[in-house]
Amino acid sequence: MTVNIVVVGSIALDTVSTPKGKRDRVLGGSAVYFSTVVSYFTRVGLVGVCGRDFGNENIQFLKDHSVDLEGFEQVDGLTFNWNGSYSDDFGDATTHSTCLNVFQSFDPKLPASYASTPYLFLANIHPALQLKVIERVKAPKLVALDTMNFWIEGALPDLKKALPRVDVLFLNRQEAYMLSGTKKLVSAYKKLLEMGPKRVVIKLGELGAMTATQSETFFVPAFPCPNLSDPTGAGDSFAGGFMGYLAQTGETSEIGFRRAMLYGTVMGSFTVEQFGLDSYNTLVNKSI
Amino acid sequence: MTVNIVVVGSIALDTVSTPKGKRDRVLGGSAVYFSTVVSYFTRVGLVGVCGRDFGNENIQFLKDHSVDLEGFEQVDGLTFNWNGSYSDDFGDATTHSTCLNVFQSFDPKLPASYASTPYLFLANIHPALQLKVIERVKAPKLVALDTMNFWIEGALPDLKKALPRVDVLFLNRQEAYMLSGTKKLVSAYKKLLEMGPKRVVIKLGELGAMTATQSETFFVPAFPCPNLSDPTGAGDSFAGGFMGYLAQTGETSEIGFRRAMLYGTVMGSFTVEQFGLDSYNTLVNKSI
Repeated sequence: MTVNIVVVGSIALDTVSTPKGKRDRVLGGSAVYFSTVVSYFTRVGLVGVCGRDFGNENIQFLKDHSVDLEGFEQVDGLTFNWNGSYSDDFGDATTHSTCLNVFQSFDPKLPASYASTPYLFLANIHPALQLKVIERVKAPKLVALDTMNFWIEGALPDLKKALPRVDVLFLNRQEAYMLSGTKKLVSAYKKLLEMGPKRVVIKLGELGAMTATQSETFFVPAFPCPNLSDPTGAGDSFAGGFMGYLAQTGETSEIGFRRAMLYGTVMGSFTVEQFGLDSYNTLVNKSI
Repeated sequence: MTVNIVVVGSIALDTVSTPKGKRDRVLGGSAVYFSTVVSYFTRVGLVGVCGRDFGNENIQFLKDHSVDLEGFEQVDGLTFNWNGSYSDDFGDATTHSTCLNVFQSFDPKLPASYASTPYLFLANIHPALQLKVIERVKAPKLVALDTMNFWIEGALPDLKKALPRVDVLFLNRQEAYMLSGTKKLVSAYKKLLEMGPKRVVIKLGELGAMTATQSETFFVPAFPCPNLSDPTGAGDSFAGGFMGYLAQTGETSEIGFRRAMLYGTVMGSFTVEQFGLDSYNTLVNKSI
């Protein structure tokens, strides 16, 4: 089965502490969360790098989810490790350490068979690398990009070069404020759209998410999760549900994008109900 | 025409500075915002007190909106004055001074004709006074109460006595977190409902508002206002649209409450588009 959507991003082993417990070196990373979620919708290829410490059970987990691993590299060294904790209110994470390890010199190699992928998700990596990947893909139907404060502060010129090539820009509220230089949502999304992306999706955590184009705005509340366990990966899972739905259906209408926001919301809620990717050990899509 | 809804709250002259300009001693106060908005829906009575400096043009404004003034008192002294400013991002207001003046000894006198009012809104005053008013009203259909951090910190036992008597509790997000002792929306509204109100409405500013009962939750986004001028009174205007719609229609269904959330949203957006109550100099309800 040909790959319908490709994600380029991080593969990680996360050490996470939340009010509900603590887990050490569990499978994580933006490309892993995204591809796992997308696997419930359509055939997805993961481009990323891990180290020799990346356990076979993790590779097996991806294979069990039919994630295509042609662009998956395992190299000498250690896997990217993020060590963080969430306070009692599950607000912003506190990062204790970020060991990039093999991810530091990540130079995404897009397999030739991925060059004509219709859907591309550039998870949170250096915008110069994101741009490089965009340039390797021929005539994609939809390119989406996620970024973060680190790149907005440290690689703004590259990010500004990438944005006009992007159909959907994903950010959270703080990142939207930072990149737009304004602190009101209405003015933020207008300024972000002026930077080139056709559509902006702003993730608002427990308050949901909103999307805007030059002519449309749409807001979706969060699915209320009384059993929140671990917010890690919520954003990439949202993007996975959003992009997975679009890639599965080929939808390009405004209504289709709004429905994609709902799929993103639902998939994000699955992720945060358990630690890491545990929810996807049991989740089954009965419709495919 | 009999009064259908009664509000008890503040009458103020506000000195407000926002990125869009500055106004000195303009008509304001929770009961004034609320009753002005409700006047677009149904007959409303205002119970409040002002001083001798309260200009006739302000009384005329209320009369022009057919606000019933039987419970409106003008006494010796100065009117409550709030002096505050909003930063560039129109976030939380900075209070420069709060001169309670005649409002300090406000002891709401409910006219006998208001004792059988079906709808009652207790705007943000001391919870002991709110409780006193509740006890004077015979068999109301719906009692709503607004409060703030000042009372949550300083008059919690009184507030806790009032809450079980309340059908709808209005608060903003920070107040909801403070009163519930939690910092997640889902856990906050559950804890607030345990304190006695049948329904909670949490106002989320530019992100909209949510409402919850023991069995239902509903979320409404804000109406995007690119021409935000002055956020003062947004919350009381939201409550006004919400309560005005319910009082006008007699709706008691869940769908009715959801529709009330939309009316609240729309009326709040009218208020913030201009300074103070300026929007209501020109706004006309063509349906009544």
